[in-house]
Amino acid sequence: MTDTAVTETAVPSLSIEAKFEAARLAARTLATVTTDRKNAALDAIAAAVVAAADRILSANEVDLANGHENGLSTGLTDRLRLDDGRLAALSAAVGEVAALTDPVGQVVRGSSLPNGVGLTQVRVPFGVIGAIYEARPNVTVDISALALKSGNAVLLRGGSAAENTNRVLVEVIQEALASVGLPIEAVQTVDEFVRDGAKRLMRARGYVDVLIPRGSADLINTVVAESTVPVIETGAGVVHVFLDESADEEMAVEIVHNAKVQRPSVCNALETLLVHAASADRLLPPVLARLRQAGVTIHADEATRARFADVVDATEADWATEYMSLDIAVRVVDDLDAAIAHIARYSTHHTESIITSDLVSAERFLAQVDSAVVMVNASTRFTDGGEFGFGAEVGISTQKLHARGPMGLGELTSTKWIVRGAGQVRG
Amino acid sequence: MTDTAVTETAVPSLSIEAKFEAARLAARTLATVTTDRKNAALDAIAAAVVAAADRILSANEVDLANGHENGLSTGLTDRLRLDDGRLAALSAAVGEVAALTDPVGQVVRGSSLPNGVGLTQVRVPFGVIGAIYEARPNVTVDISALALKSGNAVLLRGGSAAENTNRVLVEVIQEALASVGLPIEAVQTVDEFVRDGAKRLMRARGYVDVLIPRGSADLINTVVAESTVPVIETGAGVVHVFLDESADEEMAVEIVHNAKVQRPSVCNALETLLVHAASADRLLPPVLARLRQAGVTIHADEATRARFADVVDATEADWATEYMSLDIAVRVVDDLDAAIAHIARYSTHHTESIITSDLVSAERFLAQVDSAVVMVNASTRFTDGGEFGFGAEVGISTQKLHARGPMGLGELTSTKWIVRGAGQVRG
Repeated sequence: MTDTAVTETAVPSLSIEAKFEAARLAARTLATVTTDRKNAALDAIAAAVVAAADRILSANEVDLANGHENGLSTGLTDRLRLDDGRLAALSAAVGEVAALTDPVGQVVRGSSLPNGVGLTQVRVPFGVIGAIYEARPNVTVDISALALKSGNAVLLRGGSAAENTNRVLVEVIQEALASVGLPIEAVQTVDEFVRDGAKRLMRARGYVDVLIPRGSADLINTVVAESTVPVIETGAGVVHVFLDESADEEMAVEIVHNAKVQRPSVCNALETLLVHAASADRLLPPVLARLRQAGVTIHADEATRARFADVVDATEADWATEYMSLDIAVRVVDDLDAAIAHIARYSTHHTESIITSDLVSAERFLAQVDSAVVMVNASTRFTDGGEFGFGAEVGISTQKLHARGPMGLGELTSTKWIVRGAGQVRG
Repeated sequence: MTDTAVTETAVPSLSIEAKFEAARLAARTLATVTTDRKNAALDAIAAAVVAAADRILSANEVDLANGHENGLSTGLTDRLRLDDGRLAALSAAVGEVAALTDPVGQVVRGSSLPNGVGLTQVRVPFGVIGAIYEARPNVTVDISALALKSGNAVLLRGGSAAENTNRVLVEVIQEALASVGLPIEAVQTVDEFVRDGAKRLMRARGYVDVLIPRGSADLINTVVAESTVPVIETGAGVVHVFLDESADEEMAVEIVHNAKVQRPSVCNALETLLVHAASADRLLPPVLARLRQAGVTIHADEATRARFADVVDATEADWATEYMSLDIAVRVVDDLDAAIAHIARYSTHHTESIITSDLVSAERFLAQVDSAVVMVNASTRFTDGGEFGFGAEVGISTQKLHARGPMGLGELTSTKWIVRGAGQVRG
C-alpha cells in the first residue's frame, strides 16, 4: 500500500448529502454480507493499521503540532497522541472484534400464531450509525470495527483536533474494505465539513439511524438537545458505594479502595462514599486510612469531619461531581433510606454498590436504586463490557431507552419481525 | 363515588414542575409494588370507568359542543365521542391489561463471571412516561392502564379538543388509584398548561424517561424535532404488497383484498401494490377486479393503465401516500430488485409482504427489505400487537431504537443489571 494507492481509493471530495446517500447504499450491502466477509474486512483493517503506521503517525504529528500551537490541554494531547504501541493495541482490538459472535441474524424470540403464521424476531443492523466524538483517534478505529461487525455503515465526526489523523485512518480503513470487495463508503468521515458536519449528522433523519456521542458532558448535552436522530447517550458516572450498618470491614476497605483507586479517570470509578451512621465509627477509620495511603483527597461532610482532621470540607457541588481523580466525597447518612434518597438525588444512574451482610438491606438497595447497574458486595469497577463478557464495549449507556449499562455488539442492532404465511388473511 | 369525592381526590392546581416532581415520586413507588397491587388498581379503574359514566359523558358532551362550535372535522368528532358502549369497551380493555403478564422483574439474561460475581439483567419500569396525543380520550385510559401495569407513572397531554373528557377520566383513574392505596400522581394530565404543557413535556429531561407521541404525522414530527427526552415514534404505514412472478393467483387475490379492504383506515392496511411485469397479465385482472368489487379506487402507473380503463393516473405523490381509505396505488415493476428498490425509496418501513412460490425470492425479500415487519404470503393486517399475541398494543414503532414493530408491555420497560458479589474487586 503506497501513498498513490491512498489517492486512488480515498473518497473524492463529495457533498455531505452525497456522503449520506453513499452511506445508506453501503449499509444496504453490509446488512446482508456474511460474517466471514465482515471478519475478512476486520482482519484487513487490523493489518492495515500496523502496515500504514508511518502515514498515520505523520498525520498524527501534524495534529499534535497544531494542538501545541492552539494550547490543547495535556489531557487531550495525551488522548490525541498515537505511537507504534498504541497502533498495535488498536490493531489487536480490531482482531478481537473479528473474534466476537456476529449479532446479526440472532433470533430474539418467535412463535406460531393459532392460524399457522410463523413469527420470528431477528437482530438486524441499524443501518447507518453516526458518531460524534473529540480528539480521540482510537475511537475512529474502534467504532468502525464495531459498526462493521454488526453490519452497519458509519459516518464519523471526530473533531478538528484530530482531523488529519482521522482522515488518514479512514483512508486506511477504506483501503482495507476495498481489498475485500466491500463498499468503502461503509466508513466515512464528515470532518471536512467542520461544525456543519456535526449539525447535519444530528439532523440526518432518514439517513442516520442512531447517533452515538462520545466525549464530554457538554458534547453529549448538545447532541441530545439538537439531534432529531435517535441518540444513545453514554454518560458520566457519579458512582456511589454505601457502607451499610452490617458491612464487613475488610470487604468495605478493599472494595472502596479498588473502586476509587484502581483507575480513577474512568466512569465506573467511585466518586461518593456513603456510610451508615451506626457503622461510621467502626468503618470510616480503616476505609479512609487505606484511601489516604493511596493519596486520595477526602471531601467530607460535617459528621465525617467531626471524626477526622485533614479532610476537605465537602460543598453541595461535591455530591454532584464526577472527580475522575484521586478525590472522594464522603457523607455519613442516617440509614439505608437516607442513602437511597441521596443516590436518587445526586447519582447519574450509572453504577451504585451496597456493602452489607444483611439480606433485607441488599434486596431493598437492588430494588430501589434506579441505576443502570446496581451491586451488592462488589467493586463498581466491574461495570464494563469486557468484564461483563461482551468482548468489546461500545460505551456505557446511562439512558433507559434501547440500551442501559455496558453496550456490546448486540446493542448496535435493531430487530425485524419475519412473518411466514401460506396465504393467511385476517378474519 | 360522588361528585364531592371528585373534588377531594382530584389534583389541586399545581405548577407543572410540581406535577413532574410528583410523577417522579409516584414512579419510585410504582417501580416496586407487586403485580397484585397493580392489578387491583386496574380492576378498580375498569369498574370506575363504567360507574362514573354519567360524569364522563357529561364532560364529553361539553367537548363535543365546543368541537361543533370550532368546526372540528367529522373524523375527529367521531374519535372524540364517547358513549356507554365505548366506555364498556374501554373498561374491558383495562381488564384485559390486568390479565397480561407483568413484564417487571422478568430476567432477560444472566451469567456468572469467572470470579464468581453473578450477573442478571432484569426488566424494570422506565419511570415516567409522557404521552402526547390528540382528541382521543380512549388513549387516556389505554395508555394509563399499560403504563401502570408496567410500573410506570404517566404525564398526559391529550389536547384541547378532549380537555374536559380527559380531565374527568384522569379524576376517575386517580380515585381508583386512591381506592387501592396507590399514589394518585401516577396518572396526571398537563392539559391545563395548554401548549406549554406539550413543550415542557418535550424538554423534561430528568423527569420524563420516554415520550410517546400518538396521532398525525405532523404531531409526531414536531415531537421528534423538539424533544430532548427520548422518543418512541409510532409512525405512518405506506405498506406494500409485491406480487412476484410465481405468485399463486388465489393467494394474491385474497391477500391483496384483505390487506386493502378489511380495515382501510389503519396503519397496517395496504397502500401500494407492486406487480412483477411477467405476472401482470395473469394477476392484475383478477386482483383488480376483486378490489373494484369492493369499491376501491385504483391509482395506476402507465403499464397498468395500458391494461385497464377506468383507473386514475398515479402521480409521484401517490407512491408516498398513506391513503387510509379505499384507494390503492398500483405499479408494474421489472423484477424483484425493482420492487425492493421501490420499497426502499417510498416505504415508511412499517410492513411489506411478498406473494410468491419461489423460495429464493422469498428469502431475498425478507432479508433485503428493511422494514419493521416483512412477510411472505400473509396479509399485512397481521402487524398488530393483538395478532402477535401481546394482548395489548402500545402502538407500532417505525423507528429502530428500542422497539420496532408492534409494542407490547415489555417495550414499556427498560432493564437494569443486578450484580451480586462476595467482596470481589477488579484485578
